[in-house]
Amino acid sequence: MSNYDTIMKKIADKSVKVGVIGLGYVGLPLAVSFARKGVRVLGFEKSQKKADMVNAGKNYIGDIQDEELAAVVKAATLSATTDFSRLAECDAAIICVPTPLDKFKKPDMSYIEASCVDIGRFMKPGILVSLESTTYPTTTEDFMKPILERESGKKEGADFWLCFSPERVDPGNKDYKTDNTPKVVGALGKEAQDIALALYGIAIQHLHLVSSPRAAEMVKILENTYRLINISLINELALLAGKMDINIWEVIEAAKTKPYGFQAFYPGPGVGGHCIPLDPFYLEYIAKGFNFDLTMINAAGNINNLMPYRMMNKIAFALNRHGKALNGANVLFLGVAYKPDIDDPRESPALLVMEQVAKKGASVSYHDPYIPEAVDEHGHVWTGVALSDEALAQADCVVFTTNHACFDVDRIVAKAKLIVDTRNAVKRVHIEDGKVYKL
Amino acid sequence: MSNYDTIMKKIADKSVKVGVIGLGYVGLPLAVSFARKGVRVLGFEKSQKKADMVNAGKNYIGDIQDEELAAVVKAATLSATTDFSRLAECDAAIICVPTPLDKFKKPDMSYIEASCVDIGRFMKPGILVSLESTTYPTTTEDFMKPILERESGKKEGADFWLCFSPERVDPGNKDYKTDNTPKVVGALGKEAQDIALALYGIAIQHLHLVSSPRAAEMVKILENTYRLINISLINELALLAGKMDINIWEVIEAAKTKPYGFQAFYPGPGVGGHCIPLDPFYLEYIAKGFNFDLTMINAAGNINNLMPYRMMNKIAFALNRHGKALNGANVLFLGVAYKPDIDDPRESPALLVMEQVAKKGASVSYHDPYIPEAVDEHGHVWTGVALSDEALAQADCVVFTTNHACFDVDRIVAKAKLIVDTRNAVKRVHIEDGKVYKL
Repeated sequence: MSNYDTIMKKIADKSVKVGVIGLGYVGLPLAVSFARKGVRVLGFEKSQKKADMVNAGKNYIGDIQDEELAAVVKAATLSATTDFSRLAECDAAIICVPTPLDKFKKPDMSYIEASCVDIGRFMKPGILVSLESTTYPTTTEDFMKPILERESGKKEGADFWLCFSPERVDPGNKDYKTDNTPKVVGALGKEAQDIALALYGIAIQHLHLVSSPRAAEMVKILENTYRLINISLINELALLAGKMDINIWEVIEAAKTKPYGFQAFYPGPGVGGHCIPLDPFYLEYIAKGFNFDLTMINAAGNINNLMPYRMMNKIAFALNRHGKALNGANVLFLGVAYKPDIDDPRESPALLVMEQVAKKGASVSYHDPYIPEAVDEHGHVWTGVALSDEALAQADCVVFTTNHACFDVDRIVAKAKLIVDTRNAVKRVHIEDGKVYKL
Repeated sequence: MSNYDTIMKKIADKSVKVGVIGLGYVGLPLAVSFARKGVRVLGFEKSQKKADMVNAGKNYIGDIQDEELAAVVKAATLSATTDFSRLAECDAAIICVPTPLDKFKKPDMSYIEASCVDIGRFMKPGILVSLESTTYPTTTEDFMKPILERESGKKEGADFWLCFSPERVDPGNKDYKTDNTPKVVGALGKEAQDIALALYGIAIQHLHLVSSPRAAEMVKILENTYRLINISLINELALLAGKMDINIWEVIEAAKTKPYGFQAFYPGPGVGGHCIPLDPFYLEYIAKGFNFDLTMINAAGNINNLMPYRMMNKIAFALNRHGKALNGANVLFLGVAYKPDIDDPRESPALLVMEQVAKKGASVSYHDPYIPEAVDEHGHVWTGVALSDEALAQADCVVFTTNHACFDVDRIVAKAKLIVDTRNAVKRVHIEDGKVYKL
């Protein structure tokens, strides 16, 4: 039987074994989705701690139901390992590793590269390799394929197949999880398309095929560039609106009554998370190779980069109106998660504002019910405080940086001396009232 | 009875008489909406021809049903005049005049100014003045109010009331017309709010009150700036995608499968119409007065300004591959309306591309089933041609500039020698096939 027939048959009778590399917020939900359909999944993790937790049926990802993970582990459908030589057992390898940017906004491809080296080394013939990590268009064809061929001595399109299928995980989204979020697939060649659609079709309800991996890579970048651009636009308009005595939050609510052609975005101290602040810059990186300047992304990036400094200024001048210098002031930040009601402080603009405010000599603390401890980009560890009446009263300025639904805004306003509200937490204040100052 | 009580009573019993200044694509539908509810409307027009047409019950606006206009004219509920002294008959005056930009992108306020002078001169006490024209925030309070007070010798808030309520007309929209599109209202003071809500409530199903005219002014700008920014982004990404052998149209269709947080925009030869290319620049104008640079609008404006030149290049290099110079070539453009299936060529990017291509020595013609004749910004009159087999065969290059649904694409592709497709009219071609070249 040909390699193609073999894998298609294994997918059809669900005897296919799927390797998932990286058991983070993308890989673990995907692994569970496959395992719940009765497909054996072997998860590969560098972290022994995470692998052990999975093998003990213990969940560490917010979007997974604890009992679902426990059930598939108990049934031995899902297991995890730190031994990458066990890739030799897999009929498919799905890469769900990070693609960070370095401080010069250059994509760090080392995780993808390491995954390709491991897969190449231990590959058995006829496997499908799929990348889910966001990256610049052309990565699958021009970066991964040569590494896989070199390390395996095998040939793409004959001995193994290659596809790109971007993750669309939206942490905290109650409606859309891995299995019911439509998934885009771009594969190299007709056979790879067949195999990828058949395999993902087991776990994912709706698949959307595009003509190439590079088109699929571009899809993910378009989705998140759209978000960066629009958040940056509304941040810029918010700063102008404040100067013009216009409440931007009221304007957005009114614009939302337009029943077509508008989608609302909200201002804030900057964009955070693992996607929106990063993804557009993969494209900017590869565009340079085509002598192409992405002026919208560039402008949006500048606005976003400046937001933490502008928020620092806002805090300093709010204190200034109360006759206090930022230097020596007690500033309490509420919320370090990058969006409401989740426990993730990655790329959180709150930490950037805290850092700037601390640099200017303020005594900084934070409270976040979901994040007891947060590490900023310089490795500094911030420890959260309780939201006591004393903490509120002792703060010279309280800053809303994340609008967690659980915050008791009335109590906070009652107890605080001065508030800078970057999230429209205090709805009843127009723009400022002497105590509350809004972005 | 107080002025306030008088107008509220007239609104309640529908004896109120509404003056609508400007019977264009905003004013005439609004006038008809009021008249259909039994409110007497007097339309004011500089153009005797338009006034005569209205008084003869003849419709000239695509979004109005001919029989509806005829019925309200026959019932004498709606009439039109060129005699602005008859504003003295009106209990409310709604201004629906153009606010163009001059060639330096400075707002031309002369139409609003003239309307305010007319209203001020002939105003009877206790009227509501409402502006619907898009303009920069602060116009109603800082530009209109002084003119109205000066010309009338009356006092805003006592002798007359002032509000801003942006038009949201979307020409060709089958679902949302004047009466069922939610309408934003921002008025000066509580009485003006009451009056404006009561009056507009007769004709419009859903009203959304904001705290001030300037907030309402900003709403309209936000809505259209959002569109400019996103069209410019996708145009920039389309140009890059072409270089990277990625079909941007396919990417957009795939991104649309994301069930949250994405709205699709499409590339093209530039943005057109009476709103999107203009409205963001009202804000840029006033922002300068606040020493504020709108970098996103600026970047978007640059992309949009360059698109006609880029399309000219695309045509020139498509011809070049066929061994022909643009100079001396016959270029036939399909569609000069600024969007599909309407008859409006205002600010249409097609005309800008035609102008550039003609400047380079090409012989230019166009076909548009809805627009027999089009005048460009320099006053040059272009006359459309029929879409004959001969016209298609004689053209060295056929350019899709508007994707009217009625175009027989298969026939055009069959008969044309060379096609530049800026609108994805030819779906089955990936990016180019030697005959068809896509944006």
